[in-house]
Amino acid sequence: MKRLKVSNNVIRRLPRYLRKLDDLAASGMTRVSSFELGQQLGLTPSQIRQDFSCFGEFGQQGYGYNVADLRTHIAGILGCDRGFNAILVGVGNLGRALIDNFSFSECGFTLSAAFDVNPALIGTTVGGVPVYSAEEIGKYLAENKADVAVLTVPKQVAVNVAEKLRELGVEAIWNFTNVELAEPNTDTIIENMHFSDSLLSLSYFVAERMDERAGKPGRNDKE
Amino acid sequence: MKRLKVSNNVIRRLPRYLRKLDDLAASGMTRVSSFELGQQLGLTPSQIRQDFSCFGEFGQQGYGYNVADLRTHIAGILGCDRGFNAILVGVGNLGRALIDNFSFSECGFTLSAAFDVNPALIGTTVGGVPVYSAEEIGKYLAENKADVAVLTVPKQVAVNVAEKLRELGVEAIWNFTNVELAEPNTDTIIENMHFSDSLLSLSYFVAERMDERAGKPGRNDKE
Repeated sequence: MKRLKVSNNVIRRLPRYLRKLDDLAASGMTRVSSFELGQQLGLTPSQIRQDFSCFGEFGQQGYGYNVADLRTHIAGILGCDRGFNAILVGVGNLGRALIDNFSFSECGFTLSAAFDVNPALIGTTVGGVPVYSAEEIGKYLAENKADVAVLTVPKQVAVNVAEKLRELGVEAIWNFTNVELAEPNTDTIIENMHFSDSLLSLSYFVAERMDERAGKPGRNDKE
Repeated sequence: MKRLKVSNNVIRRLPRYLRKLDDLAASGMTRVSSFELGQQLGLTPSQIRQDFSCFGEFGQQGYGYNVADLRTHIAGILGCDRGFNAILVGVGNLGRALIDNFSFSECGFTLSAAFDVNPALIGTTVGGVPVYSAEEIGKYLAENKADVAVLTVPKQVAVNVAEKLRELGVEAIWNFTNVELAEPNTDTIIENMHFSDSLLSLSYFVAERMDERAGKPGRNDKE
């Protein structure tokens, strides 16, 4: 069966819809139109209807969307109800920050184990998560499933650790190492956290505001 | 003068172009066509030409783009050459991870100071960056400029700290707190790092692959 692939842009918007729906639910709203949703997200109503139509019909003409139902539906599309398991490799500052402050469970994930090479950490528990020796990843994976590995090792070892995880059958990596891991010949699913993309976008907006204040022509003003 | 605003989607693609051009330069390529660039980034050549045309003409028909020139041009559009200064507020695990591992300078930023409430940290230096008392932010900002504040405080205090920074004249916040700070009535520029958006996208791709293997119809297959 030939599967229709949903465009990457649509997929990337789904988590934003989820966040917005959570905000709306928290503020007591129970239904929302594509017009209102669009206004709050900077999208056109037709764009929103088109995005949702990729996954079937789930609004009602003239009524809009039931906030709770739409949230459940989108969470299901994103796989939040699949009970995915994650392991984390590299319990340095960033790994620790994720364990302590990032809510894996809100994304439907259980973070079940962490791995490091530091003897002072091995055998301890960080934020309720047991830390094992990096040498035991294979043994652990033979007995437990990990749908995703969170990669927070130093960049010098990123490629080697990713390769080892792949050999051990890990198929998806959430990559915080700032090293490009995508290899054309492997079918590991890599999701890169590019901090710099975010800071550079912010930089753009700051520069734009400065130019506006200084009365400089916009960087895109023609002539 | 009415300024033409460049669409957010175009701005968000600029850092990706920059990364790709760095890769190309590292691999020894000196020129690239919009076709090649598009293939590597999953964009159409016309999309790429359209994105760049927002900022003037900088390719040559039949020649393509000079990699180094295009890189310089895009970096300039993003403000990498403005000498922006950043301060970081909250030297916990995440703040420390950013100071130690994130290259602010590659984005054109200088991280000149960090602030925390922990007496054990105040007066020390982390990764070459001096850590001052959070109470001294006002004094610091009276004497130094900060174009961006990196917010890595615990989420419980995120709103209060952001408000204080705004009162002190900080106009742009790189927000790692996972708390929505955008307020309709302030003109602070907020750039949120939404870790969960990234993990949820990864979750989608993992779920999609599982469904493919199980021979389930795609979530967007009609009938």
